[in-house]
Amino acid sequence: MTELSVVGKPTPKKDGAEKVTGRTRYLHDLVLPRLAHGKILRARHPHARLVRIDTRRAAALPGVLAVLTAADVEQEPFGFARDQTALKAGKVRCVRDEVAAVAAETAAIAEEAVALIDVDYDELPAVFAPQAAVRPDAPRVHDERPDNLTDLRYQFSHGDVDRAFAEAAAVVEGVYRLHFVTTCCLETMVAVAEWDAQGGLTMWSTTQVPFLYQRELARALGISGDRVRVIQPPVGGNFGRGLDLYPIDVIAALLARRVGRPVKVEFERLEEFVASPTREPCEIRLRTAADVSGRLLAREAHVTVDNGAYVSWGSTTPYVMLATVAGLYRVPNVRFDTTIAYTNNPYSGSMRGYGNLESTFAVESQMDELADRLGLDRLEIRRRNTTKSGDVNPQGFVVTSCAMRECLEAVADAVDRPAPPPEAGWRRGVGYAGMFHVAGGARIYRSDGCGAIVKMDDFGKVALITGATEIGQGSETVLAMIVAETLGVPLERVEVVNSDTAVKPWDVGAHASRTTFIAGNAARMAAEKLRGDLLAMAAEQLEEPAERLAMNDGAIFVAAEPQRRLPYERVARAGHYAPGGRTLVAEAFYDPPTTMLDKDLRGNVSATYGFAAQAVVLDVEEATGAIRVRRVVSAHDVGRALNPLAAEGQIHGGIHMGLGYALAERLVVENGQVLTASFMDYAILRAEDMPELVVRLIESHEAEGPFGAKGLGESGVIPVSAAVANAVHDAVGVRFTELPITPARVRAALEAARR
Amino acid sequence: MTELSVVGKPTPKKDGAEKVTGRTRYLHDLVLPRLAHGKILRARHPHARLVRIDTRRAAALPGVLAVLTAADVEQEPFGFARDQTALKAGKVRCVRDEVAAVAAETAAIAEEAVALIDVDYDELPAVFAPQAAVRPDAPRVHDERPDNLTDLRYQFSHGDVDRAFAEAAAVVEGVYRLHFVTTCCLETMVAVAEWDAQGGLTMWSTTQVPFLYQRELARALGISGDRVRVIQPPVGGNFGRGLDLYPIDVIAALLARRVGRPVKVEFERLEEFVASPTREPCEIRLRTAADVSGRLLAREAHVTVDNGAYVSWGSTTPYVMLATVAGLYRVPNVRFDTTIAYTNNPYSGSMRGYGNLESTFAVESQMDELADRLGLDRLEIRRRNTTKSGDVNPQGFVVTSCAMRECLEAVADAVDRPAPPPEAGWRRGVGYAGMFHVAGGARIYRSDGCGAIVKMDDFGKVALITGATEIGQGSETVLAMIVAETLGVPLERVEVVNSDTAVKPWDVGAHASRTTFIAGNAARMAAEKLRGDLLAMAAEQLEEPAERLAMNDGAIFVAAEPQRRLPYERVARAGHYAPGGRTLVAEAFYDPPTTMLDKDLRGNVSATYGFAAQAVVLDVEEATGAIRVRRVVSAHDVGRALNPLAAEGQIHGGIHMGLGYALAERLVVENGQVLTASFMDYAILRAEDMPELVVRLIESHEAEGPFGAKGLGESGVIPVSAAVANAVHDAVGVRFTELPITPARVRAALEAARR
Repeated sequence: MTELSVVGKPTPKKDGAEKVTGRTRYLHDLVLPRLAHGKILRARHPHARLVRIDTRRAAALPGVLAVLTAADVEQEPFGFARDQTALKAGKVRCVRDEVAAVAAETAAIAEEAVALIDVDYDELPAVFAPQAAVRPDAPRVHDERPDNLTDLRYQFSHGDVDRAFAEAAAVVEGVYRLHFVTTCCLETMVAVAEWDAQGGLTMWSTTQVPFLYQRELARALGISGDRVRVIQPPVGGNFGRGLDLYPIDVIAALLARRVGRPVKVEFERLEEFVASPTREPCEIRLRTAADVSGRLLAREAHVTVDNGAYVSWGSTTPYVMLATVAGLYRVPNVRFDTTIAYTNNPYSGSMRGYGNLESTFAVESQMDELADRLGLDRLEIRRRNTTKSGDVNPQGFVVTSCAMRECLEAVADAVDRPAPPPEAGWRRGVGYAGMFHVAGGARIYRSDGCGAIVKMDDFGKVALITGATEIGQGSETVLAMIVAETLGVPLERVEVVNSDTAVKPWDVGAHASRTTFIAGNAARMAAEKLRGDLLAMAAEQLEEPAERLAMNDGAIFVAAEPQRRLPYERVARAGHYAPGGRTLVAEAFYDPPTTMLDKDLRGNVSATYGFAAQAVVLDVEEATGAIRVRRVVSAHDVGRALNPLAAEGQIHGGIHMGLGYALAERLVVENGQVLTASFMDYAILRAEDMPELVVRLIESHEAEGPFGAKGLGESGVIPVSAAVANAVHDAVGVRFTELPITPARVRAALEAARR
Repeated sequence: MTELSVVGKPTPKKDGAEKVTGRTRYLHDLVLPRLAHGKILRARHPHARLVRIDTRRAAALPGVLAVLTAADVEQEPFGFARDQTALKAGKVRCVRDEVAAVAAETAAIAEEAVALIDVDYDELPAVFAPQAAVRPDAPRVHDERPDNLTDLRYQFSHGDVDRAFAEAAAVVEGVYRLHFVTTCCLETMVAVAEWDAQGGLTMWSTTQVPFLYQRELARALGISGDRVRVIQPPVGGNFGRGLDLYPIDVIAALLARRVGRPVKVEFERLEEFVASPTREPCEIRLRTAADVSGRLLAREAHVTVDNGAYVSWGSTTPYVMLATVAGLYRVPNVRFDTTIAYTNNPYSGSMRGYGNLESTFAVESQMDELADRLGLDRLEIRRRNTTKSGDVNPQGFVVTSCAMRECLEAVADAVDRPAPPPEAGWRRGVGYAGMFHVAGGARIYRSDGCGAIVKMDDFGKVALITGATEIGQGSETVLAMIVAETLGVPLERVEVVNSDTAVKPWDVGAHASRTTFIAGNAARMAAEKLRGDLLAMAAEQLEEPAERLAMNDGAIFVAAEPQRRLPYERVARAGHYAPGGRTLVAEAFYDPPTTMLDKDLRGNVSATYGFAAQAVVLDVEEATGAIRVRRVVSAHDVGRALNPLAAEGQIHGGIHMGLGYALAERLVVENGQVLTASFMDYAILRAEDMPELVVRLIESHEAEGPFGAKGLGESGVIPVSAAVANAVHDAVGVRFTELPITPARVRAALEAARR
């Protein structure tokens, strides 16, 4: 199949028109008869004993259906480390902590009732930095954890690192400090829970891991997983936010169980800033060694993560940071270690890029420093260290297809094109960064698979029932394209069904840029089976062996006599109506040939890996420190661009998020309190802030991928901050090791440099 | 599998608790953002030219979004004979006719707007009886049909009927007149339509034939079937009402297309009486011949059906009436013919029993008359003519399992039990009737099949995605039982998914008592495949050949060493997580080995047939004509009672409906106008009107049925009116050939007899 009809064509998202015309029904829009509304009372202090909670005034308010505290419900610990309950008992450990919850006839009544709950706190000394938390005299966040350390530690060693550093021609080192940011999903967090008369729970959720969510929610409620059904309406952004179970989900279920009605809990925007998961703050100490030709000899990193009050996925990001340290460019000797400590700050979840922004910022900053130290061109040092197809890296990651070199050349080429020169008082800089990320799944769970069911009806309508989850990334569209291409039917006749755990087969969830690759393979396999069944039907009807038939453009025909053809839906119908007839349903499950990391953090976790290179062209105003990004060039090894429009869109969105991380966004958390709790305070970039974007999609034709594709969802965001920092250095000679690089910081640094 | 764990146990309906606690969300309860509300203006006269429709005042009303007449929209003819459009043009042919429709922000505004539409009519002479309609000078209902005859005619002839009558020892004949009744669904008709940005239509519908509905609706709208997705929320009754597409559906779609928003059209109760489909009025001329021993020699029937203004399924009921005439008891010579004529009355749809109530009333009345004529016991004459296993009837129906004889004996036995004697002034009568009906599907469409997908998740939850439609008959429960039994898992872990054409595989719909048999076989086949896959997984895990394994009560074990066992969900999970693992999805399609009737109305339309006998014990008050039914005994050859509780419930509901038909219910239509348009006027029986019910389930173990089962949904209702009429005759010696047998009619007949 060399000539493709659907795959490879720029294709608008199937759900795009509905979204831009305001017709999409998000979970916030869900209305049910007898729907009650829940609100949550959170901790006033980041660390305090709960002395007394008086809910009487709240409960007496007309329209209030229930007021719950931890004393009123049975709940099991949940979360990555099972270190929290949804409603807190005994003490609160961060300002996000849920002290009580109300269900009422309306959201307004519930909010009024929340304000009527009287809580007496006994304030405790608190700790807000992991470095302080591990000191012997630090306040204990969890009483049973005297050292405030979580159980998470990522230790890795490969080769002779000390010797490599001792023998290096150049060693650079630095401490890189990364900050809290938040996903800024336009749809705030929301959960709707309803129990049926048999004790089954239906959850409408914005989760992006419905089957893990099903399991975790059941555990938190002390019921078996088969009693939970998860329904996922379209979501207005997720970016990793939906990777964990949160108190909002459990509380919605607890309230619904108590009041015997469906209950919706939805966050106000302020609550979203305070209580939705963040990207984790961390400090990366990194040393890199190179020989005189610029070839990397070793890297050594120690990452300290502010875990916050409870463990969620944010604290597992060193797993990915290690992959960058050991895998972004060839590096023969690697040492890596972590300190992940509880504090009284909010806790972090998964967020697009998942540690890789942070580590790439450190690693790529040092690539430039090494180039400078050794007098090498900054692109040349990267070329000399480029990963190649066939490499096996220190962790045992097996590189199959790899177009990193081509990405670097594409960036170099695109960045050389003329741009308007900087204005007077502005200095121009160009910065580069590469990127290495999983792109063929990531086996972080025993199964990294996805199931697919393809059904064709009498009208030629094809339904793909996929385990995969659409979180705005365009997976519905690309999966429909894969099915349409495999079957040879028009794209508009393929419908994707993906929103109900009772209906869809298993999938581990939308994360690690895996959906196109994993769910795409499953969809392709199921469609191929269906195609086989359909061709067998056609073989009877056309009285030709199936091997002589072809299918394309909605018709099945004798390959050698294309005029002998039948519309495919007629074949399906005739096959259905024939004696002993059947309808067309096929299923498949794809789990990539990968392994989980072993205890030494070795193993080939992904069936293939993605590579990219970016260049940022920006101008810095010397007087004010203002930065104006002029152009971002982003070249990506995508294996094959199944939907170039969506691929570019993913990269555009990633660059937007990356520039915000690099230059503007910061969730200011001081003494455990979130100070930037509105879009007036929290600075995401606006459309007018965006530079010219140049995207280059490099096709390396990954053999294991569907039609040669690799994952792409995160790679746009990952290198941006490193490229920005390198460009700022190129412009004004100042190296920033802390983000965001705001005008105030630039001005202060320039002033310091002048002194 | 002799010992069954789930099948055969009386099991409450899965959806029962939700329904009786008011939690079930019917389509009326559906609320969507931007939902608009539609109302329909109907004809003021049963037959009139539409001279002018002025919608200006309606359109100007604030809150009105659109006012549509036939002039405003493109629409294709639809219906069984494609003889109507949703909005009528030119003229109206019955008072149900849709002249205009409004969409507005609220239902109240829409109703107000409907009242503001000015229509000028030019009244035409009308015809209200089929006998009158076929006279040469009759008004023409459809201008292009000068004789008012529909294209429907059911002609059948077998054997030498004339000779049989000539040689008979006894011949009885009569004319039986059946009346309009209506389904009285507690949920009135409702449709919600929404178009998406790609031109796809989602219909929320109370249909019971979703895939035929999909096709018909697409045709009526002039779009392809793959653009229609049908979603079926739980319904509050259907009884055949949902077998056709109606103007409400098309109008909802037309309004939604016009206003670019979802539109809900729902009937008020009055509208439900006027505009929902009825059981067809008809006249059956029947003659029966028997020899001196009571053996049937011949039957001859001519059925005249009042088609009403348009052809819907009600006019096809002679198809089933013929089956009764030729198949209820052995009868070697049969002649059958019909006259089905348009009138200006409302038109009739499918309704539970589907012609068989009507024909059984005639046939079984004559069985009693023959017994009386020949001096035979009324049960004895039935025994002598009983159909037996192995029979092939005049139409070519092949009788497989048959327990008709046992049904008759069970009835005789149960009726003999003592009952309180009649009060003074009351006379007691006992009446009998038998029943013959399809019970293994009914091939009225090229496919009589149903698809099923069974999916087991990591939590041991089993989802059955069935093509079948739940309309309150309990099919969800019985299908879940079949899957639970086949797999050997607890019933509560099986969930049934059956409400979305994008998700479920093809099924012809809920009719002809076919769901347990057809969908049950499909579910069983899919579950067997899944069981095989699961046992293969277990074989690897237990290191035993799959043939040595058994599965029961949620565990898989070595049959010879039952202590070597694993919970099934652990097997599923371990199989999923194993290298090269898979998840569990299986599918099957079952289409019974039957044929459509040929042009001579011969063929074996059903894979098996159902038999039943009923006895009615009642008292008649001679002074007033009042009838008090004391006991109904109903014995049914069910093959096997998969869920005895539901089987009894089906029979109870059928008897309720049958007694209403026999004694009380009548939709009074005079001069084309419906006069009984509320429950104050239309007499359905109340709970307190119901007699003692005795049900006997006879198990003939049908080899083709799932676990031996046959269909049962309609058989309770079918014989009731015949048994009632025979009991009344037994009590007071008066034979009624017209229903309902009201006190006024009884009193009049008794007075006439005394004169």
